[in-house]
Amino acid sequence: MRYPKGIKKNYQNNTSHGNRGMVLEHDLNDTNQYYLETKRAVIHKKPTPITINKVNYPSRLEAVITEAHFKTPSTTDYNGVYRAKYIDFEAKETRNTKYFPIANIHIHQQKHLKNIIECGGIGFIIVRFTNLNETFLLKGEDLFQFLNTSTRKSIPIEYFRKKGYLIHIKYAPRLDYLKIIDDLYFKGDK
Amino acid sequence: MRYPKGIKKNYQNNTSHGNRGMVLEHDLNDTNQYYLETKRAVIHKKPTPITINKVNYPSRLEAVITEAHFKTPSTTDYNGVYRAKYIDFEAKETRNTKYFPIANIHIHQQKHLKNIIECGGIGFIIVRFTNLNETFLLKGEDLFQFLNTSTRKSIPIEYFRKKGYLIHIKYAPRLDYLKIIDDLYFKGDK
Repeated sequence: MRYPKGIKKNYQNNTSHGNRGMVLEHDLNDTNQYYLETKRAVIHKKPTPITINKVNYPSRLEAVITEAHFKTPSTTDYNGVYRAKYIDFEAKETRNTKYFPIANIHIHQQKHLKNIIECGGIGFIIVRFTNLNETFLLKGEDLFQFLNTSTRKSIPIEYFRKKGYLIHIKYAPRLDYLKIIDDLYFKGDK
Repeated sequence: MRYPKGIKKNYQNNTSHGNRGMVLEHDLNDTNQYYLETKRAVIHKKPTPITINKVNYPSRLEAVITEAHFKTPSTTDYNGVYRAKYIDFEAKETRNTKYFPIANIHIHQQKHLKNIIECGGIGFIIVRFTNLNETFLLKGEDLFQFLNTSTRKSIPIEYFRKKGYLIHIKYAPRLDYLKIIDDLYFKGDK
């Protein structure tokens, strides 16, 4: 994958202030790049939302941000178009082997996914249990079913195994999640 | 419109290093907020893409970006879902009264709009001629027709008047561009 000049990849996509989420994110960026090049879908990760406080202009053409802060995201990280439909998802990794802590999906992002589905869009989450090497796609509808019927602060892995769909890791595309979307939302279409 | 605490609006959405584009952007943000609250559509402006070079951690909970640069955007600024379809557009203002300089839409953004349309999405641009107080929606297809058949570096306002659709300014929603999308892409649907 080629990155534009000057991008320091480790920082570029790092919203979680550490290495958390980086491997899954890299797999998804590769996958989305593959989808783009094969004209299958146009799905991008949104830039990290920040609040800019100070900008310096050392020259007429150059602007340097000298003070900014990370913002709590109001939407999910990934969205785009597939087979004319709107696709929207959030992706998270956890080292936990039994549970996915719901706090990983901000309340604003949950609300956003709900709005998406109400408007006819396809909304889901992708969760990787790093230490088990299992990556699941869970439909937004099934996420909300859990949230609406449980008071637990985390989703057991059994719920993902029962309601979610395992995404197998391949060479290219790395994480072919659109194959699952085909089965779930375009069944019967050619 | 309510902004989250601490956001300095003038910087927040300002990718053009000045006041250019700010009024139209404000109108569109208000409109999109209205669409969201009335559950008509979920359309957001993407965060300004930046490259982060340095981050300080004055405390365990706080991260301050101390050096970052604006990046050339690889996608358009606005996207979302309307009637299950994927919507994508770029919005620009010009003080010019006769022409819209094509350089206002980066080549990457043009390519992005083309990809969107090829994947079945709805792609367009919104251009405001500030000094004439005329705001047009121009379909991506008509933008590309111009680019493919002309060597000019700007689009005459006549082209917008002939091929584009005038968006009237109202109270709420401020700029009801989805009304035009209804006519253009959902004709005959209820």
